[in-house]
Amino acid sequence: MALESAFANFTRRDWERESVDGTVRVAIIGVGGFARQRALPGIADSRYCEASLLVTRSPDRTRSTAESFGVDHVVDHDAYLAGDHAGAYDAVYVATPNALHGGCVIAAAERGKHVLCEKPLEITVDRARNVVDACDDAGVTLMTAYRLQAEPAVRRTRELVRGGVVGDVVQVHGGFSNPLLEHASAGTWRLDPDLAGGGAMVDLGIYPLNTTRFVLDCDPVGVYATTHSSDDPFADVDQHVAFQLEFPNGATASCTASFDAHAGSRLQLVGTDGMISIASPFGGIVPHEMVVESGDVRMEYTGPPVDEVREEFDYFGYCVLSGTDPEPDGRDGLEDLSVIEAVYESARAGRRIDLE
Amino acid sequence: MALESAFANFTRRDWERESVDGTVRVAIIGVGGFARQRALPGIADSRYCEASLLVTRSPDRTRSTAESFGVDHVVDHDAYLAGDHAGAYDAVYVATPNALHGGCVIAAAERGKHVLCEKPLEITVDRARNVVDACDDAGVTLMTAYRLQAEPAVRRTRELVRGGVVGDVVQVHGGFSNPLLEHASAGTWRLDPDLAGGGAMVDLGIYPLNTTRFVLDCDPVGVYATTHSSDDPFADVDQHVAFQLEFPNGATASCTASFDAHAGSRLQLVGTDGMISIASPFGGIVPHEMVVESGDVRMEYTGPPVDEVREEFDYFGYCVLSGTDPEPDGRDGLEDLSVIEAVYESARAGRRIDLE
Repeated sequence: MALESAFANFTRRDWERESVDGTVRVAIIGVGGFARQRALPGIADSRYCEASLLVTRSPDRTRSTAESFGVDHVVDHDAYLAGDHAGAYDAVYVATPNALHGGCVIAAAERGKHVLCEKPLEITVDRARNVVDACDDAGVTLMTAYRLQAEPAVRRTRELVRGGVVGDVVQVHGGFSNPLLEHASAGTWRLDPDLAGGGAMVDLGIYPLNTTRFVLDCDPVGVYATTHSSDDPFADVDQHVAFQLEFPNGATASCTASFDAHAGSRLQLVGTDGMISIASPFGGIVPHEMVVESGDVRMEYTGPPVDEVREEFDYFGYCVLSGTDPEPDGRDGLEDLSVIEAVYESARAGRRIDLE
Repeated sequence: MALESAFANFTRRDWERESVDGTVRVAIIGVGGFARQRALPGIADSRYCEASLLVTRSPDRTRSTAESFGVDHVVDHDAYLAGDHAGAYDAVYVATPNALHGGCVIAAAERGKHVLCEKPLEITVDRARNVVDACDDAGVTLMTAYRLQAEPAVRRTRELVRGGVVGDVVQVHGGFSNPLLEHASAGTWRLDPDLAGGGAMVDLGIYPLNTTRFVLDCDPVGVYATTHSSDDPFADVDQHVAFQLEFPNGATASCTASFDAHAGSRLQLVGTDGMISIASPFGGIVPHEMVVESGDVRMEYTGPPVDEVREEFDYFGYCVLSGTDPEPDGRDGLEDLSVIEAVYESARAGRRIDLE
C-alpha cells in the first residue's frame, strides 16, 4: 500500500460501513473522574449514543453532573441492581472499580442490556469468563472498552502493518507511565489489589499489551516480566512493571508501565522493511504525530487529535445498532487477563510463562 | 542542575582536564569497512592520535588506503605478531573479528603497547579476562572501544541523570537494528559464532547494554532474553534479540537488537520526574536531537553531529598521554561479556539469570 493513502483522511471511520438510525441510550455505572471528564463529554458529542442514567454511590452529589449533560436519572447501585429505570437505557457503560465489573455487567445482561465494560473486564480470568458467559447467554453485545482500538492513529498503524509497509514486524517497544498520586489519593482503589486486581500492569500496561496485539493481529505465546514496588502506598501492587511478549512468528514486544514515573507513553514498531512510531499513544489525547519509514521513504504525519472516547462510544453504538460484533469483545478482554495473570506469575517465578 | 546549562556547549570535552602534548602513534589491526570509513578518517581528524601502521590480511590491497591517510607501513598479521615495525607505534587499535582480539592485544601488551580494542573485548568472559590480565601485567592502558561513551549526546545524558533532572530513572528503552546483509555478504564473520561469539546481541545489542550501564552508572543484577533466528544465513547466531535488564534499585532496561530489520536505533530513559530521549543514538552518526522533560519543562535540542569516532580516538590518546585510566576499561568490557553470556543462557533456559 502507498504511504500517502494511509494518511489521507486520517481520522476516517473505516468501521462505519453502513448507515444506521437511532441512538443507544446508555446507563453510566461508576461516575468517577474518567466518566465525568471523558465519557460523558464523549457521549454528548457522539452520533450513536446518549447518556440516560447515572449509577453512583452518591446520587446527591452527582445530580449537578447529570444536569450538565442532560441526563434524566441518577440512582445508586442498589437501585440499579433492583432494576430502577431499567426502561430508560438500552446499554450500560461500566466504569466502576475493576472487581465490581462482574456484578454490574451480569445484572445488565440478565435484563437484556448491551454492555461496554472498562478494561480489564474483571480482576481474574475466571471472573471475567463469568462476565463473557452472562453476555453470551443473554445474547447481548459485550465490548471491552479498549479506546485505543477506536483511535485513528492506531487504526492507521494496523492498516500500514497489514499493508506490508514495514515488512514483517520483528520488535515492538511500548510504554505508559502515569504518576497516579498526582491525580488520586493514596487511598485510591487502583492501589487496592482486591478492587483493582493488580497495579501498573492492570491499569497502564494493558494499553501497550492490547494495542500491540491489535496492530499485530495476533496473541502472544510467552511472556516474561519483572515488577517492582517500594513502600506504601505502592506496597500491595506493582508500582513499576516491565514485560516482554513473544509472538508466534518470533516477534517480541518490550513493554513497560509505571504508576510512579513522569507521564508519557510510546509505541514503536520495527519491521524488516520499516518503522512506525506513534507519539504519546496511550495518554488519552493522542497528538496524532506519527513517523513512518518504509524502505528509503520517511513520512511524518501531524494532525489534530480526535476525541478517541467519542470514537469509542460511537463504535459501540454503531455495533449495537447495526448488529455488528465489536472487535474488542469479551474474548479480547479475556486474552489480556490471561497475559496479566502470566505477567504476575512470571514476576514471582523469575521465568518465562507459556501462553499457548 | 539547570537544563539550559546541560545544552550549553553541547559538544564540550568534559574529559579533557589538562593540557597534554604529543600524539600517540597507532597501529590499526584489521582494516575492514569500519577502519577505512570511520577509524582512519577519525584518527586523521584527531588531536592526540596518528595512524602509523596498518595490519591486514592483504597488504597489497591496502597500500592505497595507507597512502590516502599518510600511513607509512602496511604489514600482514604474521609480521605484526613477529614485531615488524614495532618501533613505529605506541598503541594498537584492534578491529579484527572478535575471536582474534585476544591474540592481537596480548602481542601488543607484551611489547608494552597501549591498546584500544573493539567491543566485545573477546568472544567469552574467560578469553576477555586473559586480555585484561595481559594488559594489567604489562602496565599498558586498555580501553574498550565504546564509541558511545565519547558521544556528546550520551555524555550530556549521563550528566542530566547525575544531576537529578529526571529524578530516579525507572525504565529504559533501547534498541538498535541494522540490516547486516545490506552491507555485508552472507559469508561475513559476523554470522560465524566461532569468530563473532554470537549475533545481533554481540554486535548491536551491546550498544544499548553498555550505554544504559554508562548513563545509569551501575551494572545489572539480572537479565532475561529471547533470541530468534530463521534459516541461513542467520541459522547459527541470533538474528533478533530482546533482553530485559534489572538494576539494583529496581530500574529496568528493555532492549532489542536485530541483524535483519530496518535500520534504526532508540534510547529513552523515563524517570520519576522526567524523560530523556536521544534520536538514533547507536547508528554511528548521532544527529544530536534530544528531548528532555523535567517536571513541567520540556526542551528539545538539535545540533550538528560530531564525529564520535574522532572523539573516541582523542579520548584514548588523551588517556595514554595524560596517564589517565579510560572509563571504558577492561572491566567495563568484561562486564558486558558477562551480561552477553547470561543473555544467551537465559534465552536457552527461558528464565531470569542472576548477575550478582
